[in-house]
Amino acid sequence: MHRSRLAGFIIDCKTDDLASAASFWARALGMPVRDRDANGYERLEADERDLHLEVQQVSHESRVHLDIETDDVEAEVARLERLGAQRVGQVKTWWVMQAPTGQRFCVVRAKDLDTRVGANCWR
Amino acid sequence: MHRSRLAGFIIDCKTDDLASAASFWARALGMPVRDRDANGYERLEADERDLHLEVQQVSHESRVHLDIETDDVEAEVARLERLGAQRVGQVKTWWVMQAPTGQRFCVVRAKDLDTRVGANCWR
Repeated sequence: MHRSRLAGFIIDCKTDDLASAASFWARALGMPVRDRDANGYERLEADERDLHLEVQQVSHESRVHLDIETDDVEAEVARLERLGAQRVGQVKTWWVMQAPTGQRFCVVRAKDLDTRVGANCWR
Repeated sequence: MHRSRLAGFIIDCKTDDLASAASFWARALGMPVRDRDANGYERLEADERDLHLEVQQVSHESRVHLDIETDDVEAEVARLERLGAQRVGQVKTWWVMQAPTGQRFCVVRAKDLDTRVGANCWR
């Protein structure tokens, strides 16, 4: 048995100026930058919407991707493979996957999912 | 004075089989298909997360895009233009825009934003 749910969305920006990119999205969405990080992303304040939203500096073309969070990454990745997704690569503690419809998305670790709205329990 | 907020996300799928695409995302996210529509999209049940989530059949490459909802589309589009976004085209009641960071997104109509969590008031 494990749990998972939609964690949020990452706004991937091909840019040399992450601060400007994050500033645009913060003002567009009305969600201030919450954390600035030296590792190439800035997190927006989206707790009110119960979402994880990041603006991330990337080298590929700009896009938006979604994250699924889970208390058991390996079990969740295996579940998604059975639905037709493919593993692309492991990065630190998370997996990059590709949907059968072509979009990349990530499966990331989460704690306390039993208390989070919208978490599904898979048996 | 007008209001806007993040409405949700559209999972754009380049596919001839929208039902299979929607089925994958419904099961991946644990959000059942709520409405099937003859116009090329299926809406997922994401009310619990206060999000509008759709799987949409498109002719361009698959991607994910976000929607901003507002009680005044023209005022919101003008506000986003001042932040650096560009109008791409009007479709029915909404505008397709392009962020300075490259992603396409839509500005759509909404009602009762004064009662919705996370709505911003712009003066």
